[in-house]
Amino acid sequence: MAGHTQRTLSGETPKLIGEEIVVKGWVHTRRDHGKLIFLDVIDRSAVIQAVVNPKNSEAAYKTAVKLKPQYAVEVKGVVKKRPEGTINKDEKTGEVELEAKEINILAKAESLPFDIESENLELPTLLDNRSLTLRSLKAETIFKVQEAIVKSFRNTLSKEGFTEIFVPTIVKSATEGGAEVFKIDYYGRDAYLAQSPQLYKQIMVGVFERVFTIAHAYRAEPSTTTRHLSEYISMDAEMGFINSWEDLMDMAEIVISNILADVGKLGLVDVPQIKTKIPRVKLSEAQEIVFKKTGTDHRGQPDLDPADEKELCNFAKEETDAPFIFVTHYPVAKRPFYTMPDIDDPKNTLSFDLLGFNEEWVTGGQRINDYQMLLERIKKKGNNPEDFDIYLQAFRYGMPPEGGFAMGVERITRNILGLSNIREASLFPRDMERIDERFSKKTKEENSK
Amino acid sequence: MAGHTQRTLSGETPKLIGEEIVVKGWVHTRRDHGKLIFLDVIDRSAVIQAVVNPKNSEAAYKTAVKLKPQYAVEVKGVVKKRPEGTINKDEKTGEVELEAKEINILAKAESLPFDIESENLELPTLLDNRSLTLRSLKAETIFKVQEAIVKSFRNTLSKEGFTEIFVPTIVKSATEGGAEVFKIDYYGRDAYLAQSPQLYKQIMVGVFERVFTIAHAYRAEPSTTTRHLSEYISMDAEMGFINSWEDLMDMAEIVISNILADVGKLGLVDVPQIKTKIPRVKLSEAQEIVFKKTGTDHRGQPDLDPADEKELCNFAKEETDAPFIFVTHYPVAKRPFYTMPDIDDPKNTLSFDLLGFNEEWVTGGQRINDYQMLLERIKKKGNNPEDFDIYLQAFRYGMPPEGGFAMGVERITRNILGLSNIREASLFPRDMERIDERFSKKTKEENSK
Repeated sequence: MAGHTQRTLSGETPKLIGEEIVVKGWVHTRRDHGKLIFLDVIDRSAVIQAVVNPKNSEAAYKTAVKLKPQYAVEVKGVVKKRPEGTINKDEKTGEVELEAKEINILAKAESLPFDIESENLELPTLLDNRSLTLRSLKAETIFKVQEAIVKSFRNTLSKEGFTEIFVPTIVKSATEGGAEVFKIDYYGRDAYLAQSPQLYKQIMVGVFERVFTIAHAYRAEPSTTTRHLSEYISMDAEMGFINSWEDLMDMAEIVISNILADVGKLGLVDVPQIKTKIPRVKLSEAQEIVFKKTGTDHRGQPDLDPADEKELCNFAKEETDAPFIFVTHYPVAKRPFYTMPDIDDPKNTLSFDLLGFNEEWVTGGQRINDYQMLLERIKKKGNNPEDFDIYLQAFRYGMPPEGGFAMGVERITRNILGLSNIREASLFPRDMERIDERFSKKTKEENSK
Repeated sequence: MAGHTQRTLSGETPKLIGEEIVVKGWVHTRRDHGKLIFLDVIDRSAVIQAVVNPKNSEAAYKTAVKLKPQYAVEVKGVVKKRPEGTINKDEKTGEVELEAKEINILAKAESLPFDIESENLELPTLLDNRSLTLRSLKAETIFKVQEAIVKSFRNTLSKEGFTEIFVPTIVKSATEGGAEVFKIDYYGRDAYLAQSPQLYKQIMVGVFERVFTIAHAYRAEPSTTTRHLSEYISMDAEMGFINSWEDLMDMAEIVISNILADVGKLGLVDVPQIKTKIPRVKLSEAQEIVFKKTGTDHRGQPDLDPADEKELCNFAKEETDAPFIFVTHYPVAKRPFYTMPDIDDPKNTLSFDLLGFNEEWVTGGQRINDYQMLLERIKKKGNNPEDFDIYLQAFRYGMPPEGGFAMGVERITRNILGLSNIREASLFPRDMERIDERFSKKTKEENSK
């Protein structure tokens, strides 16, 4: 068997009853029942139950008694229909089992330090043992959902005429505003890790009109909340020749609706679907809604707090059956320099947040596309226009009315799955206490030397 | 017209003869012929010729005389079949023109400093004016080809059962070997920008068996060659449960064949297609071929030089009509610590490079999947195993035989298009002399203050 045997994926076994095949995968569980050993072998397609009976193969049985979870194995055997009463309808392969004739160990595994499928694992345990805990069924679901979210974003925008672009993450200045940034030693000079692909995607509107990019973004906020990552994946879209900034919300709504639909199709998790138009309310109206519902008076505040966001999502769920709502017209002072003010209400902007599941899912808005106005706004915010030379250049040569939106992959993953900490939605999360290994652990070890 | 007019893309005009429509786009050229003005207006779909005749609209004519290249405009008009003799068969819209009735300026443009379509622009000019020069038709082709390359890579691997993953670029140590790395100030500690997603994609074989990732990679080599970027996009794949390391070349061959086919389908550039199996030769055999063809004796050398690579691609073109060849069995000393040695030839490895168009397109190989062997190799290379804790963890729990390959997006883009410098294949290239703006330019300005 070793070497060049044709492999069959477990998921194909229900169609192969009576045939002799080879499956390859990891031992998920081993159960010993008297003289029989039952192995659940997991591969990328499914789990298959292998039955090892010493009467069929003494050699296979001798190997099977040595197996432990996470051993990588190949099992040759015959696909059989399971006996009545042992059929498992929840499993893709639950009507069949593999009668083992030969088992080879491809790689051994140490004894697991804990049950990786336990629901009670604390976050530090999950992360200290990341290469192992990512093998749990829960982690597999998380990152399959994440893949589907990204794929859906790309498919939708490709269909809508957007071009995918790749923009740099090393930038020369830290002036986009907002979050703190990481500094790099760039051939002896200071450079920084980009907080977002914002300025580059805007430039690219001048080339392709409609662009999107899936980009790493970096935030050096000294924070360890359940919502914050130092490095995350941003899905960004930007489009020119808009008729109105409402075009941007229309596009964001299509993107989000498709994400929910595509994740739903995976069959891994229940997700609400967007069936009616997502409500759009001004910030001031949103505060009025919260006031009427709860008596909490945040009218006139420049932003919403988490409790307000929750109330608004509840409101949306009552109105439309889905917990999504656009809040618009945030004040100029609260938005980045490039945000277009509303000419009818110049203290506020043509910007929006899409709230979903009690949190901000998407943020976006129309941008200032007039060169002089942009230059003034940069100066007014205390920045040096020289730091924006390539960016400003794009606006000196005919930038049409444009805008866009962005959303964090991990946040949407977390929200859809109801994870308590965003770190669970990142394969190898970075924060101020950890790069793979916890810093404090390292320090302790170093101290003990 | 201003505001909420339904826009028509130029590319749709041939089907709309006789209809009144609005197109939006950039003025590409303006030609004045006596009393007529011809405008080429370009949008994301195509170029359309608008004819402005003061007899049809005095107002439109008055606006048209002010237009310059890169003005963003909307033009209302009637689609007409062009008169016989003025049909341009090379253009998608070459059989029609738009008889302008109304023109609005959406955004003005300064006078262009040079003809952005000129073939003679020097690289510094291209890069100093990047936001403008990216609007040339040549640049549009480059980045449409680039998009197709990436899309093809993803589509092929998704079809082959690979899961897309996102791995971090901030890493805690600089020990993968080879290229120099950029250092980050990470909350007061040292961290580094990843040279590749290599170690993480290997870990993820333990989760999904087959994974791919499109990741930013960073190389701090103090070099300004035409082949080197400080930040580039790496397309990486990794697969487990291989029968043989030849599976990896088989997969790389499928990926590359599809990339060439998919780029070909764009109709933007002629690309050779892979119709017969790509030749596979050992390094020693490759050197023998070069020796026989040219008399250059590099037999016994640990690597190929650029002239050798060119000869081998010529050899492949003669044999198979496509300039692609796999060279295998590079020496252990020349490959990273994780490379699997050939047990039948232990000084050499089960590794390969795919040479294409005289350059290395893909590099890959089987990895060491045995924990003890890997640990020894790490130590032997002078590294500290503690720096690899998360990585090594994956190999303590049943890592099947596995391997993978990687390729640089910009290099393949450059090769397919025959660009002389890799910087032309990066939207905003980073090198030791430039982050958007040239450092030397900055210094000069600062000096003159």
